[in-house]
Amino acid sequence: MDCGSSGQTKNSVSAAIISVGDELMLGQTQDTNAKWLATQFTLRGVVVREFRTVHDDLDAIESVFRELSARHDILVITGGLGPTDDDLTREALRRAMDEVEPLQVDAQALAALDRWFIDRGRPMSANNALQALRPKGARCLTNHLGTAPGLYATIGRAQIWCLPGPPREMEPMFELEVAPHLPRAVMATAAVHSFGQGESFLAELLGARMARDRNPLIGTTASGSIVTARIRAVDAAADSAAMESAMHEIEQLWTPYAFGRDQETLAGALGKLLILRGERVSLAESCTGGLAGSFITAQSGSSAWFAGGAVTYANGAKIDLLQVPNELLTAHGAVSAPVALAMARGCAALFKTQWSASITGIAGPSGGSETKPVGEVFIGICGPRFEAVKQFHFPGERASIRDRAAKAALALLRFALLGHEAFAAPMIWESKKNA
Amino acid sequence: MDCGSSGQTKNSVSAAIISVGDELMLGQTQDTNAKWLATQFTLRGVVVREFRTVHDDLDAIESVFRELSARHDILVITGGLGPTDDDLTREALRRAMDEVEPLQVDAQALAALDRWFIDRGRPMSANNALQALRPKGARCLTNHLGTAPGLYATIGRAQIWCLPGPPREMEPMFELEVAPHLPRAVMATAAVHSFGQGESFLAELLGARMARDRNPLIGTTASGSIVTARIRAVDAAADSAAMESAMHEIEQLWTPYAFGRDQETLAGALGKLLILRGERVSLAESCTGGLAGSFITAQSGSSAWFAGGAVTYANGAKIDLLQVPNELLTAHGAVSAPVALAMARGCAALFKTQWSASITGIAGPSGGSETKPVGEVFIGICGPRFEAVKQFHFPGERASIRDRAAKAALALLRFALLGHEAFAAPMIWESKKNA
Repeated sequence: MDCGSSGQTKNSVSAAIISVGDELMLGQTQDTNAKWLATQFTLRGVVVREFRTVHDDLDAIESVFRELSARHDILVITGGLGPTDDDLTREALRRAMDEVEPLQVDAQALAALDRWFIDRGRPMSANNALQALRPKGARCLTNHLGTAPGLYATIGRAQIWCLPGPPREMEPMFELEVAPHLPRAVMATAAVHSFGQGESFLAELLGARMARDRNPLIGTTASGSIVTARIRAVDAAADSAAMESAMHEIEQLWTPYAFGRDQETLAGALGKLLILRGERVSLAESCTGGLAGSFITAQSGSSAWFAGGAVTYANGAKIDLLQVPNELLTAHGAVSAPVALAMARGCAALFKTQWSASITGIAGPSGGSETKPVGEVFIGICGPRFEAVKQFHFPGERASIRDRAAKAALALLRFALLGHEAFAAPMIWESKKNA
Repeated sequence: MDCGSSGQTKNSVSAAIISVGDELMLGQTQDTNAKWLATQFTLRGVVVREFRTVHDDLDAIESVFRELSARHDILVITGGLGPTDDDLTREALRRAMDEVEPLQVDAQALAALDRWFIDRGRPMSANNALQALRPKGARCLTNHLGTAPGLYATIGRAQIWCLPGPPREMEPMFELEVAPHLPRAVMATAAVHSFGQGESFLAELLGARMARDRNPLIGTTASGSIVTARIRAVDAAADSAAMESAMHEIEQLWTPYAFGRDQETLAGALGKLLILRGERVSLAESCTGGLAGSFITAQSGSSAWFAGGAVTYANGAKIDLLQVPNELLTAHGAVSAPVALAMARGCAALFKTQWSASITGIAGPSGGSETKPVGEVFIGICGPRFEAVKQFHFPGERASIRDRAAKAALALLRFALLGHEAFAAPMIWESKKNA
């Protein structure tokens, strides 16, 4: 209660979100529409009170229309508007509206459907024409990206929008047809992202700032080892200076782990630092096999600061490409601090970059041993007057070990660029030996 | 109706899935538990009839317990079992059970919590001890991967399982505590995955096999450019020989695009072919920046067939590492068929592999031109007595262009290993010039 409605007035508009489809009920499809719609409503100060998912059944859809229209101001329902027998939203809406006349052809919607097929040089089947039907008293909403029109109607005081199921059709229709009728946003949200420490440690640093009756309200979430502080403010606290100061305070408390805001990524934050200095980086990846490089090159414009990488999965490649001495591999094994350092040095030389990072480790599930267990990873960093290796023990499965190792390499590069003090800050997965 | 209940008997067990949490209602978190649980129930012939999502509110959770226990055999609720003030599932269950006595300490659960904190060398806070509370008449379920125990209780004829929200705690608890009490599976599901053609083309190849009254029931889904045929069968059609024959038929119709079943990946399918021949592959990636390598090395054991990769994002790296002649870059540009071929040749030589693939293209959003638009990608393949380049035009945003290009490189390697006929099969994104 305290969080969901914090800062909301008693008179706030309430909404329910309904998803229709057997494919959801069978677990075949992940419903992403409900989350997307909830975000849109929340941003505009509309309180979402329930999500419902129902199967393709006329009675079930009709009864959810009746029940929820009695207790919410807004219903948005996605799915069930297509041309096939199991698309039942139109008919269920007619029944819930107590409309006795059968569904009627909407001339404008039919003309739009006609144009859609003509534009694509295909004939329109009779099934497709069914999509232009609507209950008397409802209005069709134009679908610019697909064939199924949406529907708008009211039942009692509730406004009802029926939108198509595919997100790429649903989202633009929401923006065009639903959003303009919602209250203007009186709420602001922001996020500060960090990498390298656990959620509980970082939450402790925020202390009383996380109290749930505060405005701005600050909470933490963790996803893919990125711990994020989410800020939600209403009224005066939502103005841009107040939000800026809230974000800044969190960044200070989370130094050096906080790396960016909102859409910022770890690779993007690294790129910004390198661009400022006019320097470039290269990567030598063993157990991550290109994953760190793919994180970097997911950033448009990364060619300005990323020269390239060597995926040296086999020992031969470490020797041939990176000039890692064979004796080093024999003496210490490929997963070792000396080899990590030699890989990073060889990589900087090969790609002629000021900075480089190397990753060598055991991602599992096989290949581990008592002295070198699955999850053991060495990351080497070379830079101007800078050379260091850190040893990690990442928990979890192969995919999560690789993901964390690739992110840790980017984070360590960022720390190294920030200076020795930042580089010394421990990450939660560092092996004790580093201490 | 036809699909969801196809093959179900009237007496089948019905279930409802409930997710609790303000973070869901605010659109901050994507609920993946409901889909996962629905899949588990469907596999065991249990019909899921509704999903509900409720916010952290005692009345709302209590009333959903009451309402759904009156009309379903099984309720599974996830979330709201943690140690903080907004974790209300325990108390809501007590109320819905009409249990007048307050929550009681479960001695065994408390002892397990004690051990959890002792094992981690941390003190247990008073808040954490709250997690060992349960309604009288309910039973605590051991959480092997976190602190919050689950709960089991009955209301009327309904069996109720309360599971923790984090998927990595919830899923094992479901397997251990819920699954053994469900009907044995009378249903089988399987999937055949393909890459390279569009969903509508592939659905047409299946023709009447996709009719919705069939058993097995076959549908198609598309995700990340992988088009999958999903097979669901009940009774006799669910036996392993019948499923095998259904899968085999789809694989034949979808040759050469079908690459694997169920958990099989494109990289895994490629690896199988290479292992059979005792050959290895290497990669030269430009615009994908390591993504294809990361797909390969996501497979455990890929070191047997993957030597490594060169991420040659900058032209200098293409020249230095891959011996691409500077004149070729000047004459044709880095995004061209001759450069793609030279990259693949240089890569095979560098890594001493029988096979190699190169990827060079314009991932956008910047860098495109009229003659070389965003989405233009050349993929070169070299193998024993085999050399070819294909030109693609991938639609969409940077992330999806990169994803498709990396997958197309793996798919083309697979086609090349299958022979000239497979390699000649067009992919949907191939530029007309290849024809």
